[in-house]
Amino acid sequence: MNTSTPSDLSVSVVGLGPMGSALARAFVAGGARTTVWNRTPQKAEPLAAAGARLAVDLEDAVRASDIVVTCLRDHESTRAALDAVPDEVFTGRTVVVLASGTPDDARRSAAWAAERGIAIVLGAIMVPTPVIGTPDALILYSGDRAPFDGARPVLEIAAPRAEHVGDDPGLAPLLDTAMLEVFFAGMTAFLHATALVTQRGLRATDFVPWAREMLAILPATFDGLAHDVDSGSYPGDQDNLAMERAALQHMVQSSRDAGLDSRLPELMFDLADRQVTAGHGADGWSRVIEGIRDAR
Amino acid sequence: MNTSTPSDLSVSVVGLGPMGSALARAFVAGGARTTVWNRTPQKAEPLAAAGARLAVDLEDAVRASDIVVTCLRDHESTRAALDAVPDEVFTGRTVVVLASGTPDDARRSAAWAAERGIAIVLGAIMVPTPVIGTPDALILYSGDRAPFDGARPVLEIAAPRAEHVGDDPGLAPLLDTAMLEVFFAGMTAFLHATALVTQRGLRATDFVPWAREMLAILPATFDGLAHDVDSGSYPGDQDNLAMERAALQHMVQSSRDAGLDSRLPELMFDLADRQVTAGHGADGWSRVIEGIRDAR
Ligand SMILES: NC(=O)c1ccc[n+]([C@@H]2O[C@H](COP(=O)([O-])OP(=O)(O)OC[C@H]3O[C@@H](n4cnc5c(N)ncnc54)[C@H](OP(=O)(O)O)[C@@H]3O)[C@@H](O)[C@H]2O)c1
Ligand SMILES: NC(=O)c1ccc[n+]([C@@H]2O[C@H](COP(=O)([O-])OP(=O)(O)OC[C@H]3O[C@@H](n4cnc5c(N)ncnc54)[C@H](OP(=O)(O)O)[C@@H]3O)[C@@H](O)[C@H]2O)c1
Repeated sequence: MNTSTPSDLSVSVVGLGPMGSALARAFVAGGARTTVWNRTPQKAEPLAAAGARLAVDLEDAVRASDIVVTCLRDHESTRAALDAVPDEVFTGRTVVVLASGTPDDARRSAAWAAERGIAIVLGAIMVPTPVIGTPDALILYSGDRAPFDGARPVLEIAAPRAEHVGDDPGLAPLLDTAMLEVFFAGMTAFLHATALVTQRGLRATDFVPWAREMLAILPATFDGLAHDVDSGSYPGDQDNLAMERAALQHMVQSSRDAGLDSRLPELMFDLADRQVTAGHGADGWSRVIEGIRDAR
Repeated sequence: MNTSTPSDLSVSVVGLGPMGSALARAFVAGGARTTVWNRTPQKAEPLAAAGARLAVDLEDAVRASDIVVTCLRDHESTRAALDAVPDEVFTGRTVVVLASGTPDDARRSAAWAAERGIAIVLGAIMVPTPVIGTPDALILYSGDRAPFDGARPVLEIAAPRAEHVGDDPGLAPLLDTAMLEVFFAGMTAFLHATALVTQRGLRATDFVPWAREMLAILPATFDGLAHDVDSGSYPGDQDNLAMERAALQHMVQSSRDAGLDSRLPELMFDLADRQVTAGHGADGWSRVIEGIRDAR
């Protein structure tokens, strides 16, 4: 249990774009002593009105708190900005980098911090700005555990779902990207499928209940796929890749007949086709991961 | 309400592959007088043991019942087989074609039936064989409404969820394909995302709860996308295509850094990029449907 009362806690927020501003507002609302800084000073004014202290410069912002949350556009601009602050200013402090990026971006920032002796936490914000400060606000963190544990009581003020997912600094952005892929693929498939059905006079809203039926069977399907992947065996039972390829062939043909961009069904057909051609037609869909891992 | 008792109902099942056999078994179990025929006669034997009558030939099977359910491999083989039966044998009967195919396949079968004066219903089976005969068994139907209404009491014995989705004969396979696309894209994105995270030591089963969180926000997301598509306007609010393109850029880069087949994230990036390049960076993801409809 965290025994601090909110007023004990202090935080600096560096970078006041839409997300940095949302975080700073949530820290103020949660009772943390909040210091803010932004390269373009005007963006800090609404935060000052809300009760944050405006730092005179970035170094002042870093000195103001033990926990320094940075929310700049990307990792490169974050490192470039912090490079202007002398190393010794960071002693005893933790920098929490919340820029989006790739796992390699996060690893570069972790290496940069290690070189400079800076304690760093890498975070990936999983929710849009309106959710910040609510119980649903989820941020994934990775990198060394100790600085995360130290920063956690502060971080939970703005994002109560603070999840440390591993020591590898790249893990938070990796999970971020992996999760977003499921989300974007769902949206993309929905739009392609909707383009198909609306060409034949159905409304998109008429298709939603049918699409939701398919979503409803995916959670259990994910369990089955994950079990196969972890065990490295891909049994086909009722469905198998040969049957699935036939269904995907109809999908490709329907999409082409309708004159649509057919790359999504074509890609899925190709993934199945490659496995069937390699002699795995009796296996299940989970085998497709072998082709994904073995890019040609 | 259907006032017939099961014993009043009779049906013929033509084609006894795994699905035709499952249907025939469900008809028998549901108390319908069931006649079966298969090109390769041995496959009919287990059905005879279960209580079905074996037709001596296809014409005998058609004559045996007012409702003739065909479950052959595809529409072409269905038409080829039925062409051997004289037109007049079909008078007063309804043929229910349950072969998978494209909307155009179904339209060709409907045109073929119209030419021959045969009442036809086009169906798309949405569940695997073990679900046939259970309350969850869903078959979509399209084509003329009257023969469907006549066949419905029989059809509901094997697949209680009998849904007529429209008069256009292509609509059942169209919805089938559209629904399957959401399902396959979910599975494919899950496997690609799993390939990413398992490279860094996570297990696939560790990723499942995170992937499920994304599934959980898709139903409401579909509502929003559908509303935009139906209204033809694509407002970006918290998220917009410019931000989404940046996230997809990270996805592409992460996938390439990991040496995976990156076509799925690349395709989604390209769909966003095209809209951003065309000046729609402030719009929402729903605008992507414009690019899907305008294949180049
Ligand atoms: N907004 C969201 O919903 C959301 C969701 C998840 C993750 N994120 C991530 O959160 C981070 C911040 O996003 P955002 O939406 O707030 O806006 P953003 O446009 O990505 O970033 C704007 C901030 O970065 C600063 N900046 C950029 N380059 C700089 C440099 N070289 N030196 C100093 N400051 C620099 C800007 O300062 P100036 O004002 O001076 O330009 C501004 O404070 C991004 O990595 C984003 O991907 C955002
Ligand atoms: N199985 C499923 O889970 C499932 C799910 C949804 C939809 N479907 C659809 O249901 C249909 C049947 O599928 P299935 O799984 O039962 O097996 P299938 O292998 O697709 O079809 C086998 C049946 O088609 C017959 N056939 C093929 N060509 C023929 C021809 N020229 N003349 C006469 N009969 C011919 C076979 O007869 P022989 O025995 O003589 O070869 C056999 O009865 C397919 O369109 C399939 O896509 C199946």
